[in-house]
Amino acid sequence: MQSFESLSKQFAEKFETRHFPEQPASLYEPNEYFLKLGGKRIRPVLCLMGNELFDEIIPDAWHAATAIELFHNFTLIHDDIMDKAPLRRGKQTVHTKYNESTALLAGDVMMVKAYEYLNKINANSLNRVLSLFNKMAVDVCEGQQMDMDYESQNDVGINDYLKMIELKTSVALAASLKIGALLGGGGERNQNLLYEFGKKLGIAFQVQDDYLDAFGDGTKTGKQVGGDILANKKTFLLIHAMESHKKELDKLINDNPADKIEKVLAVYKNCKADEWALELKNKYFDEALNHLEDIAVLSKRKEPLKELALFLVQRDH
Amino acid sequence: MQSFESLSKQFAEKFETRHFPEQPASLYEPNEYFLKLGGKRIRPVLCLMGNELFDEIIPDAWHAATAIELFHNFTLIHDDIMDKAPLRRGKQTVHTKYNESTALLAGDVMMVKAYEYLNKINANSLNRVLSLFNKMAVDVCEGQQMDMDYESQNDVGINDYLKMIELKTSVALAASLKIGALLGGGGERNQNLLYEFGKKLGIAFQVQDDYLDAFGDGTKTGKQVGGDILANKKTFLLIHAMESHKKELDKLINDNPADKIEKVLAVYKNCKADEWALELKNKYFDEALNHLEDIAVLSKRKEPLKELALFLVQRDH
Repeated sequence: MQSFESLSKQFAEKFETRHFPEQPASLYEPNEYFLKLGGKRIRPVLCLMGNELFDEIIPDAWHAATAIELFHNFTLIHDDIMDKAPLRRGKQTVHTKYNESTALLAGDVMMVKAYEYLNKINANSLNRVLSLFNKMAVDVCEGQQMDMDYESQNDVGINDYLKMIELKTSVALAASLKIGALLGGGGERNQNLLYEFGKKLGIAFQVQDDYLDAFGDGTKTGKQVGGDILANKKTFLLIHAMESHKKELDKLINDNPADKIEKVLAVYKNCKADEWALELKNKYFDEALNHLEDIAVLSKRKEPLKELALFLVQRDH
Repeated sequence: MQSFESLSKQFAEKFETRHFPEQPASLYEPNEYFLKLGGKRIRPVLCLMGNELFDEIIPDAWHAATAIELFHNFTLIHDDIMDKAPLRRGKQTVHTKYNESTALLAGDVMMVKAYEYLNKINANSLNRVLSLFNKMAVDVCEGQQMDMDYESQNDVGINDYLKMIELKTSVALAASLKIGALLGGGGERNQNLLYEFGKKLGIAFQVQDDYLDAFGDGTKTGKQVGGDILANKKTFLLIHAMESHKKELDKLINDNPADKIEKVLAVYKNCKADEWALELKNKYFDEALNHLEDIAVLSKRKEPLKELALFLVQRDH
């Protein structure tokens, strides 16, 4: 069994190849640029770990992992266009460095490339892997649409937000794990447990993300504290605080005062949104671990996944 | 053997179902709207005809045809964004009726839907169909990129333009035919001949398209005569005329006079671009037919394809 660090390093090395042809350079140079920006490569490693839970990692799992990472990058390129984000990982986004049309098309061809890697998978598994992958892809698109819809709605409840996070973030983790497990010969029951583990873990991960934005250490996260507040982004914290302090928060969002971050943070503290978030995170994390426990393989084999899960929800950056 | 009209009607009927779920409506309503705008459905019917060339049409060919048509619509939605086109088939484009982010995401999920239909194909053929489909998808993206690149270049030669048309238009016809043939059990040689037939036919089709824009009857095409001239669009005619009348045409393009269309048409007439285009079209059409002749099935079975080809290059609308 290999650790996240070890698999992450191996994946990064394999992935650091040229994925696209040289020409037309105006199309493919942007793709290669974006892939070089790096990233934590969590999804592909989850696929590899899901695979290794049941047996030694097989080549098909590497193909699937690569497809999953390419798909993820495709969504980032397109999301950045929709969000009008100038930067990603401190570097220019594709539509900023080039232009929107190029970013749109670069994303499209990145998605096709993901399917090219999937098509390297053994014919015995191809249909089942494609089903899971397509379902994930649709879910991610639906999640992104809900995220955009929620931007202009100020009555988004916790259940709406949970559903959106599940689609936009969780299912990609869950499907990565499940595809790995499927390719590793894990039975249907184990695959589904792993999927649920991923789904719950994804939510705990997002709670931590939202928490760090408000209560993290900017020197560690590398982001401005309160960036979500500044952008009026829906987060677990905001949605929770809205339940008790709607009037006050609506006014802060509308007035947009210079000290908005401090004032919103004060509201969060006041209604103990920080404590609530940590409880919520632990609830989902515990549920995730319970699903992992239930999987019918030796505990020893589950250790790397447990460690990764712990890292994802306890990280301070 | 069924005619284009008959297959087109059958396909339209089957295709006229809801392809997407109800929710989120903000994502799927735009997709359903766009699919209802209609279209000639040439590509899926070519897939069905490629299939019927060798045997009775099998269910897998219908799945592939549906995937091909969805993929085509995905490219149209995204191309319209890139081209900033307000109208398509006389109706508002998706990004005009909704907004760009919605159109972007609606296109993305339309592409995934295409792969969902492909994944209904029998496991024996899935890998080979996916290979052809992915290759076509990549080619179409590359063609679109070249098309955009050429907009700002004024030294585009006939061979550059031919390559772009091949990628952007021809390979989709060729791949549709070949996927149908593959599913119909046509051997490798026949599949490749059909692919070449489609490629040449696609070029002849585009020559006719460019010709009609300049020399067609506006009351029949339903478009403004000289629309391409007005938009400074690269066409077979412009590129040919540039070889002998570059200075004059550059000036017309730069000055953009009120009578630009008449003046450019006069240049075309002057260098006999119209006659040249008809010859070029016939050259590619004849080559296409030669490939079709070479296919090892009874001539009778080829009749519907021949008729469709003839229609595509002789149409006046």
